[in-house]
This record gives sequence, C-alpha cells and structure tokens, in this order.
Amino acid sequence: MRITVLAGGVGAARFLRGLKAAAPDSQITVIGNTGDDITLFGLHVSPDLDTVMYTLGGGINDYQGWGRQEESYTVLAELSAYGAGPDWFGLGDRDIATHLHRTSMLGAGLPLSAATRVLCQRWQPGVTLLPMSDDRIETHVVLRDEEGERTVHFQEWWVRLHAAVPAAGFVVTGAAQATPAPGVLEAIALADVVLFPPSNPVVSIGTILAVPGIADAVRAKTVVGVSPIIGGAPVRGMADKCLAAIGVEATAAGVAVHYGPALLNGWLVDERDKGALDAPELAGIAVRAVPLYMSDLPATAAIARAALDLAQELSG
Amino acid sequence: MRITVLAGGVGAARFLRGLKAAAPDSQITVIGNTGDDITLFGLHVSPDLDTVMYTLGGGINDYQGWGRQEESYTVLAELSAYGAGPDWFGLGDRDIATHLHRTSMLGAGLPLSAATRVLCQRWQPGVTLLPMSDDRIETHVVLRDEEGERTVHFQEWWVRLHAAVPAAGFVVTGAAQATPAPGVLEAIALADVVLFPPSNPVVSIGTILAVPGIADAVRAKTVVGVSPIIGGAPVRGMADKCLAAIGVEATAAGVAVHYGPALLNGWLVDERDKGALDAPELAGIAVRAVPLYMSDLPATAAIARAALDLAQELSG
Repeated sequence: MRITVLAGGVGAARFLRGLKAAAPDSQITVIGNTGDDITLFGLHVSPDLDTVMYTLGGGINDYQGWGRQEESYTVLAELSAYGAGPDWFGLGDRDIATHLHRTSMLGAGLPLSAATRVLCQRWQPGVTLLPMSDDRIETHVVLRDEEGERTVHFQEWWVRLHAAVPAAGFVVTGAAQATPAPGVLEAIALADVVLFPPSNPVVSIGTILAVPGIADAVRAKTVVGVSPIIGGAPVRGMADKCLAAIGVEATAAGVAVHYGPALLNGWLVDERDKGALDAPELAGIAVRAVPLYMSDLPATAAIARAALDLAQELSG
Repeated sequence: MRITVLAGGVGAARFLRGLKAAAPDSQITVIGNTGDDITLFGLHVSPDLDTVMYTLGGGINDYQGWGRQEESYTVLAELSAYGAGPDWFGLGDRDIATHLHRTSMLGAGLPLSAATRVLCQRWQPGVTLLPMSDDRIETHVVLRDEEGERTVHFQEWWVRLHAAVPAAGFVVTGAAQATPAPGVLEAIALADVVLFPPSNPVVSIGTILAVPGIADAVRAKTVVGVSPIIGGAPVRGMADKCLAAIGVEATAAGVAVHYGPALLNGWLVDERDKGALDAPELAGIAVRAVPLYMSDLPATAAIARAALDLAQELSG
C-alpha cells in the first residue's frame, strides 16, 4: 500500500510513528512543509523536516517534541556572549550539526531534497521524506497592533512572540513561483491514499497546498484527514491563532469546511466532537469519531488505522 | 610607543601576552596571518587570528595553545555521525560559535577585518588585531612522494598529515592579487618598531610578507625578530619541515639569513645559539642572545623587553 502524507512538525511526526506501526508493510512518502524554514546564523534550519526525521529516526527529544535528545546549548550560549542574535530560537549543539551539514550541502549546490536524502541516510526514518519544494518558500506573518502593521518571519511570531500578537494574515513568499520537489507529484499520483495528519491546517498543510500543482494532485486522490482540533482547541501548538487570522472557526468541523469536500474525502474527529458527524456544512465529507489523543504509540497507531480504514471504505 | 607585530598562531600569541606585560602603555597592532584560514563545513575558520584573540582575551586552552578552554566536541561528533568530513580538524563547540558568527558576518558582506573587530569586542584582547588582508589567501602545500605530486591545503598537511609527508614547496593562492587590510600599512608606517615573534618564518610571517606592499613597508622600519628555532629545533610546531621545503637551514642563524639584513635589523637568539652572535653570514643584523623559552609570563615578558631594548638601541 502506498501512503502519502502532507506533514508539518510535531503532530505529523507523532502521527507518522503511529502510521508506521499501523501499516508496517506500506510505502510511506512524507511531503514536509518547508515554509517554516529559517536562516539563523547563516544556517538553513528546516524545523518540520527535522522533527519528522528525528522522531522517526529515534533522535527526537520526546518530551518537547522537537530538537534532539540529550541536547546541549554550548554554541548558542557562545553566540549570545558575542551579542549575536537571535537567541530566542533554541538551537542545540546536536541540532546545529544537522543544519551545518545541510547548509554546507546547499552551498555546494545540492537541492534541499538531495540534502534531506543525505541526512536521512543517517536517521533511516523508514519513510521517504521529501521537502514540498526545493525552492525557497517562507511563511511570514502580518501583525497589526498599536505599533502599526509589520511583517515578521513565522518563527519569530511563533517562537519569539508565542503568537501573542494577533496575526492579521500570512504571506507565503516564494510559493507562487515554486515548483514541487522531485518526487512530490509522483508520490501523490501513485498513492492509494493521501493523509493529512493532525498538523496546522494553515501554516503547515495549507502552505504545502500553496505550492502550485500539489493541491490539484491531491484533489484527484482519496484524502483522509485527522482533526488537529479537539473540543474546540488545538491539541498542541497554536493552530487556533492561525485559523482566526484567516477567519476559520477553530473547531473540528470548521477545519473540515476550510479544506472543503473537493479536497477532503474523509475526516476523523475526536469523540467529543461527535456533533460534527451530521453537521450539514460537512456534506460530502465522510466524518468518523474516534479517540484522537496521541497519548502513546498504540493510541496513535489506532488513529492511523482508523484513517486507513476510512480511506479504504471511501475507495472501495 | 607604537609596536606592530606580524603574528602567526600559538608562538605569536604567547609572545604577545609577554609583550603586553612588558610594555603595558604601548599601542600594539597585530597583523595576523590568514593563509592558514580554511573553510570547514561551510564555516570560515581563521586559526591564527583566533589563537591570538583567545589567548589575549583569556579564552584559550592554555595547555594545547589553541582552541577554547572547557571545550566540548558535540557538533563535530554529530557531523561525524553524518559521515560529513573532515574529522581531523578539532573544531570544538565554543570555537564553532566564533566561526558561525564570523561566517555569518562575511556572508552579510562584512570584510574579514570588520568581522574580526566585532569578535574582538567580546574578547578585548588589548591590541588592535588586523588580518593581513581582507582578500582570500590560502597556503597550499606541494607534496611529492611515491604517489606522485599533489597539492593539499596547509591545514591538511599540518593537522591531518602532521607534516610527515615532506613538502616540496608552498603555493600561497591569492596572495599576488591581494591588498593589505585597512590599517595594515598605516600600522607599519606609524610603528616605532616592528616585531617578528617566534612564529613560523615560512607559512606565518613569510605569508604575511607575501601580501604586496607589506614587505616594502616593513623594510622601512626598525625590525627586531625572535628566533623560533632554539638549538636547531623549533620550540613548537614544525617550522623545520617548512624551512627544509624552501632550502633554509633550520637554525637560529639560518632563519635570520633567510629574512636578510634588508628586512631584519635585530635578532634575538637563545643562549645556546650564541654561535650566531658573530656569524659572518649575519653581517648587518644585530644579534643578541637571551633565554628564549617562553616558560611562563615573566620569562616571556623578559624576551619581549629584550626585543624592545634592542629595537631602541637600533633606532638610536
């Protein structure tokens, strides 16, 4: 079975760990969001790709969900002693080695997809991990407050400002001119099912779908998504802040309506969101209610299995 | 008193520590060799500039003479886990922060001299540290053995091969087209004395003098040097291997003859090299014999004081 997953960071990575357990004989291709990528101290940092790679490769800091386990912060402390900024992005020493190696490969002319392949040779994530594009795409956030309107990199809003300043919108620079990375459209076309894990619908999955060609390819497939919203709140992260910025209700049903029946065929909601099961605005989307908390590997594998079952039902 | 010093790495840095103690009220400008600079993992590493900066700024690993004290090697171990080379250059985590900050500034368009100034704002070395040039200059070594002739970066010969393969010569790429960094010629012109510390005469001081304009400026001044050779052997490093490659005898007298009386006015040799005092081939160079082992700060300050005394005597 061929499964293609559009992935953000922590939520997607944990879901993928369950998916591998639920479907050990499947071929899984992960199309990772690179809109969160940022250049720090000249290093090309790809937070979402690395979170997936470290999580599936056994190197993740499980407690925080991102970064390396047994991490130290010597380099960042030294950079801070130089007065070199920014100091709000938690770059650990082990993590920095990944960014150094990636940046060095990019500098030598390798595209991001090839550099990602090299990094994965070490981590052996058990999936094919592709960046959504080899072109540089960056999500910026429009902020509007008493200081007026300004635009900051997504990471600055997310990590430094903790999304406390309301976003007035998002600008995905470079997306309109970008092309999908080699293998992306093929992986979608050849997939038996395309899954949306419980990732941020706006700045993760939404950004991947903003790369010309990807949304069209996905629309042609059976697509099953897992709601990142449980009981009206994001399980993790600040998806509600992102949804508010684009005028989407932060509910399981609201996200499904945002994707729409042309894109989304099946939708898993948590049992406490059963109201979505027969919501008229979800006409055309098959909704199922199952426990959606990824509390451990068996619980996560059960969610993945429910998504695959729904996909089979829809395809069958 | 204005003192300008042409500096290599460890020997120069230790001498400078003594010089600061011997002449606390002087203005010292250090013109550092950048021929040893190397790009590793995309990072611009300036070993000689950093050795001077760390030593005078109190951050050096005193035992090994280079690198940072309390150093760790997490990033390098991770890079090695990726199979990313080279692994023979001991880049520590603290040290890497310096290279990251430097590389980031160079990438933003700052010349090396400006980046060095920024790094020194943290270390406060108490001297003005200038790279010999803002242009990229790299010392390469011609090797000739049973494998034929090949050329390697100086650091590969020095650090990886431990200079065990004989050098057939040196090629200083970029030197002929380079110009001295801002302030270099001025610091020489305004100096009351120019000092050659016990640095490598070939790949350190020789490389600095290879930058067009520097040797001419130095020749117009009172120049006193400290022999890096004691009793026919380098005190540290492998200067003998470098001297052999260019056909110069590895003795205190041999090095002085190599510089020649047009460049060198005074020369300090160790007491065990007293034979140089009235060697006919040193005609035109004032030679003095003093204890030259830089065993501690007072001993090193005494050497520096002897150099300044000789310079004063020669200036009349």
